[in-house]
Amino acid sequence: MSEKKIPYKIYLEEKEMPKAWYNMRADMKDKPAPLLNPATMEPMSEEDLAPVFCEELIKQELDNDTAYFDIPEEIRDFYKMYRPSPLVRAYCLEKKLGTPAKIYYKFEGNNTSGSHKLNSAIAQAYYAKKQGLKGVTTETGAGQWGTALSMACSYFDLDCKVYMVKCSYEQKPFRREVMRTYGASVTPSPSMETEVGKKILAEHPGTTGSLGCAISEAVEKAVTSKGYRYVLGSVLNQVLLHQSVIGLETKAALDKYGVKADIIIGCAGGGSNLGGLIAPFMGEKLRGEADYRFIAVEPASCPSLTRGVYAYDFCDTGMVCPLAKMYTLGSDFIPSANHAGGLRYHGMSSILSKLYDDGLMEAVSVKQTEVFEAAQYFARAEGILPAPESSHAIKAAIDEAKKCIETGEEKTIVFGLTGTGYFDMVAYEKFHDGDMNDYIPTDDELKIYRDKLPKIK
Amino acid sequence: MSEKKIPYKIYLEEKEMPKAWYNMRADMKDKPAPLLNPATMEPMSEEDLAPVFCEELIKQELDNDTAYFDIPEEIRDFYKMYRPSPLVRAYCLEKKLGTPAKIYYKFEGNNTSGSHKLNSAIAQAYYAKKQGLKGVTTETGAGQWGTALSMACSYFDLDCKVYMVKCSYEQKPFRREVMRTYGASVTPSPSMETEVGKKILAEHPGTTGSLGCAISEAVEKAVTSKGYRYVLGSVLNQVLLHQSVIGLETKAALDKYGVKADIIIGCAGGGSNLGGLIAPFMGEKLRGEADYRFIAVEPASCPSLTRGVYAYDFCDTGMVCPLAKMYTLGSDFIPSANHAGGLRYHGMSSILSKLYDDGLMEAVSVKQTEVFEAAQYFARAEGILPAPESSHAIKAAIDEAKKCIETGEEKTIVFGLTGTGYFDMVAYEKFHDGDMNDYIPTDDELKIYRDKLPKIK
Repeated sequence: MSEKKIPYKIYLEEKEMPKAWYNMRADMKDKPAPLLNPATMEPMSEEDLAPVFCEELIKQELDNDTAYFDIPEEIRDFYKMYRPSPLVRAYCLEKKLGTPAKIYYKFEGNNTSGSHKLNSAIAQAYYAKKQGLKGVTTETGAGQWGTALSMACSYFDLDCKVYMVKCSYEQKPFRREVMRTYGASVTPSPSMETEVGKKILAEHPGTTGSLGCAISEAVEKAVTSKGYRYVLGSVLNQVLLHQSVIGLETKAALDKYGVKADIIIGCAGGGSNLGGLIAPFMGEKLRGEADYRFIAVEPASCPSLTRGVYAYDFCDTGMVCPLAKMYTLGSDFIPSANHAGGLRYHGMSSILSKLYDDGLMEAVSVKQTEVFEAAQYFARAEGILPAPESSHAIKAAIDEAKKCIETGEEKTIVFGLTGTGYFDMVAYEKFHDGDMNDYIPTDDELKIYRDKLPKIK
Repeated sequence: MSEKKIPYKIYLEEKEMPKAWYNMRADMKDKPAPLLNPATMEPMSEEDLAPVFCEELIKQELDNDTAYFDIPEEIRDFYKMYRPSPLVRAYCLEKKLGTPAKIYYKFEGNNTSGSHKLNSAIAQAYYAKKQGLKGVTTETGAGQWGTALSMACSYFDLDCKVYMVKCSYEQKPFRREVMRTYGASVTPSPSMETEVGKKILAEHPGTTGSLGCAISEAVEKAVTSKGYRYVLGSVLNQVLLHQSVIGLETKAALDKYGVKADIIIGCAGGGSNLGGLIAPFMGEKLRGEADYRFIAVEPASCPSLTRGVYAYDFCDTGMVCPLAKMYTLGSDFIPSANHAGGLRYHGMSSILSKLYDDGLMEAVSVKQTEVFEAAQYFARAEGILPAPESSHAIKAAIDEAKKCIETGEEKTIVFGLTGTGYFDMVAYEKFHDGDMNDYIPTDDELKIYRDKLPKIK
């Protein structure tokens, strides 16, 4: 195969950047199951969602048919401040591994939020502004989404109220200051600021919080405050839609150099990065135009795809949100406090859950210490200090590249490097000091939460 | 003037990256004064420097005549992992200011060290490896240089021993973990590990340290350890040479779009970034081919150019290093503990000192709180959270852009955005909480240190 010389980093030109987001659902023969209204157990309508979400975003959320949504010019202008992100050929990692595999990673960490989250944050802030809202509320786990949203809100002059999972708030003291620099207010969750927070604290005093709790608090705050709506950084269809910019750029960069991916790998918490990265490739697979292996990588301590069940469940602990059909561990599930960083959501994006259930995507789970080993190995080879979340994908990519050493195959592996670990040094310190464990929930533990799943039809 | 549409970010292609560093000294009619041997007060020879520095670096240090030094391929390959850095057109900042000025910044923060320091770190590590050394020692202030060097040493499998100014060590606890991730050892300075450290601690118990102290410790450690040499992240001629990659890329990017800079601005501590950024432009000015205004921006709390004297002085507190003729506050000078971040060196690069003394460059000093105000303003406009050091240049650039509002001039302002502030959140927190002051040394205080300057000829 004659191949153009691939640079270390492929940067698209501004004019090559995507002008529309791609909606995988349009090409899915079997659509993901609809959201259900918790009061009626009927599919959520636009009207049902209107008190919680922005109007335009509800349309995107519910639209299973439109393949492309134009990216408004204001958002494209903002994207130009930090995008296109580079698609990096990992020459140094390949050499260090001694693998015949060709490894690429799409690096989304070169912006102050430190991750891909900004891609959807700016879109959601834009639609909130367009609707004339005063502000938005949200939750954040590792803090990347909260930072991204505070940046986006600052740009559009919107108020931003963030509920941050308490253990992350404590592990990442400086995240709060970054959000403050962008004018956001940050509250550790669960808090005494909301009814649902008070209830959770009463039932579980001393809890270190969970995304599920923080979501409940943020939703309550939004629906009880005039001129506010709730926005979410993952899981939802609209988020995967916005994040398709990652995959579209990746595909354009590969196409530019005539490279065809064999395996595409992403870490998966709620699914925003993975869903965005694989979107156009999955589109080809769904339309029968090309084939790829897709691998979702999740923490062994929060294994929704590999050990959860595919069922309707609440999206939040307080059960104030719609129900979604997804791979879930149960909305009460909270990963061990020893688990560092993000990827701690109890469920998985409905779209990805459906694709996984249909056999179109694989999933693996990896242990925390091996994730940090991969992170350090990668940092020393490629120079970038990765976020713990992103390092799940690194671990799986290295495993696939090692298989190629054995088989001699020159597979092309693409993975998503979602962000940087600058605010994760407490976790790195634990790793360096040997204070990190690999606690994995037992089957009995998982059963407790599974048994509490709502019984739907 | 017809002008090509300027993208938000100008990325050179890999093949457009500089293949040689540029040495300003070759075009200076009057050369900077030579380093003096502290024992003899005679100019330092290659032999004098050999126990301290790597051989190849000594040649670069002493060479006032060679205009271009080829960048070895190994270093160019490493550069490709994080360079070219973008030259950003600050459209959003211009709009927010309402200025007719056209503002560009060269952003060096998109790498894990978080600053431009990696450009010289990798070069110095390369030459140390080439010489067959076991490792290197160094000092670090804000921690950017130490991080950069630990990354570079990890890449070339060299041992890396860092003395970190104590107040930064305490203000930036996570910097140590990043360096550890890359395998470096980090000691807060002054320490009890060296004779000079013990002496300084005995004379000034409770000192929060200074770059001058940390340099002395690192040099002592290097000359008393077999197979080690000392490396430095700023001030030296060799460092400015390596950092010329910043200016060369900036000039290539501007030339590509037919843009001529009017004013070029950089923050100045030891001078590594400023000297690198202005190099090719200053070359044109020295050769009479073009004219530019160059502005060095320094902290009012450590004002070596604006309030120091041009004289021979020791480069370190322990007086173990050669003497350099430079603008200096005296080698005992330590900025107020309230001063956050870097730019805390008592002197200024000999090259920049000479250019300043010859009237080829201007200098201004700015107060800490106005620097953080500029930083926050910039972060909200351009999305990037800047390092406190870099924010000195932002402050000066904004001031110049505001002048253009008054005069209506469409000046082209280029400044160096040397790095990101992710590890400076303690300082940002102080700023947000109103706990930051603007202490400026009095004339009487400065006189104490000035009176202790060595009397040479």
